[in-house]
Amino acid sequence: MKEDGIKPGQIIRRKQNGDLEYLHDDLTVEEPLEIRIGRKTVATTMRTPGHDEELAAGFLVSEGIIQTLDQIANFSRPVGARNRDNIIIITLAQGTKAKLNSAQRFGTISSSCGICGKESIAAIRQNFPVIESAKDVRIGLGTLLSLPSQLREEQSDFAKTGGIHAAGIFGLDGRARVVREDIGRHNAVDKVIGRAFLNRELPLTRCILLVSGRASFEIIQKALSAGIPIVASVSAPSALAMEFARECNQTLVGFLRPPSFNIYSHAERIILD
Amino acid sequence: MKEDGIKPGQIIRRKQNGDLEYLHDDLTVEEPLEIRIGRKTVATTMRTPGHDEELAAGFLVSEGIIQTLDQIANFSRPVGARNRDNIIIITLAQGTKAKLNSAQRFGTISSSCGICGKESIAAIRQNFPVIESAKDVRIGLGTLLSLPSQLREEQSDFAKTGGIHAAGIFGLDGRARVVREDIGRHNAVDKVIGRAFLNRELPLTRCILLVSGRASFEIIQKALSAGIPIVASVSAPSALAMEFARECNQTLVGFLRPPSFNIYSHAERIILD
Repeated sequence: MKEDGIKPGQIIRRKQNGDLEYLHDDLTVEEPLEIRIGRKTVATTMRTPGHDEELAAGFLVSEGIIQTLDQIANFSRPVGARNRDNIIIITLAQGTKAKLNSAQRFGTISSSCGICGKESIAAIRQNFPVIESAKDVRIGLGTLLSLPSQLREEQSDFAKTGGIHAAGIFGLDGRARVVREDIGRHNAVDKVIGRAFLNRELPLTRCILLVSGRASFEIIQKALSAGIPIVASVSAPSALAMEFARECNQTLVGFLRPPSFNIYSHAERIILD
Repeated sequence: MKEDGIKPGQIIRRKQNGDLEYLHDDLTVEEPLEIRIGRKTVATTMRTPGHDEELAAGFLVSEGIIQTLDQIANFSRPVGARNRDNIIIITLAQGTKAKLNSAQRFGTISSSCGICGKESIAAIRQNFPVIESAKDVRIGLGTLLSLPSQLREEQSDFAKTGGIHAAGIFGLDGRARVVREDIGRHNAVDKVIGRAFLNRELPLTRCILLVSGRASFEIIQKALSAGIPIVASVSAPSALAMEFARECNQTLVGFLRPPSFNIYSHAERIILD
């Protein structure tokens, strides 16, 4: 027994009936990941370890720093560093120059942080092409309503801790292509986009991105960077997210809690009847 | 009617019974705030406008950049700038030097982003004194259980949008001292700490911080910067947050959903019987 009555690995739980019990602490791991391009630190994010290459790749793509897989020579860890598991190094292909100026990231980011490191507000709205209108890119009502339960099923840690976000990329037929979890919402999105990027599947012109939490501006921006036309979130979008989606020709669905949901932009991609 | 069937200011809602209705979009505003010290941009965060001075002050304090109110000469907005409402300038008192080196922020932060801008992982764990043990700093069970409903009552926008976080500072008697809302969790915490700082109330050695969402590492760090001994969150803490609280002699309560909750560290401050 430690002085505070809590043994290592244990927590105290007060139950509904007022009884106390000692439980094993089963919390989401949160560790920093430093992303370097060569010797330069581009970002540090608080993330749930795992799928670090996807996270780094998705981050670089969604920040507009790289565009194609051929620009990456390899991923590595620093030799001899104490925290080597928390550092990932991207070596660019010969002749490739990272567009660090356009992204203007000097510092770093954090958990659920997508637009960090810009030196000024003017740099926040990044330049990716808006989504093209295609009449056959539509999703059925039943398919849309099936996504949250699918996301939940693919999640491993959520039920245990309640403290982890998830993002999933689904086809227009509702089939899950990739689902990832992370303590940071933006990291989960970077991981799924990074996976698709590493599979050479970008742009995801016939896909839906579903996020477990809120849809902030940066989530919509990340979807745009991957060419995703439909974004759905289980919770609320922000006003700026809605504005961004409207301008960039993206369909934005919020509060997707079957059987109800809201459509904030470009409802023409949802087959409502 | 626009091409996507949604008028400006409107959204489409699918109700429980499957009917569609058109609603006014009542979303949380998300706008960037650029924080400058003199001419230097220290951070840009996506925030809900309002209480910008508190946000800026709380940010500078919780990053260890400033320590006392006397170090600030004034807050201002840039003259003639197009986005002047989204820029706040802190002019330091004569002779005061901001500890920007210790914080190592070059870039910026984002919504719910507290440890951005560090150039390396080594710099993440900041140096604030750990909380001192004081036998009379304890909170009663009934008081603890009363906090979430009080926080909810003080909130204005949550019920409307479901997309906003709240943070509150309470006395040991459970009385609310300040409650703030923001689209970013970290911003809401910066605002309440900033308010207390502007009132010259730091360190808050006899206070509790309650946050509406999860308790990440940065939330605990911010509490430490303000000398707050007890942190409670409505949702899950991360493993790193727990570790940090244990090391820094902070009491950490999670999943505070009356009548139940979890205690992750230093349970001696909670009067359980």
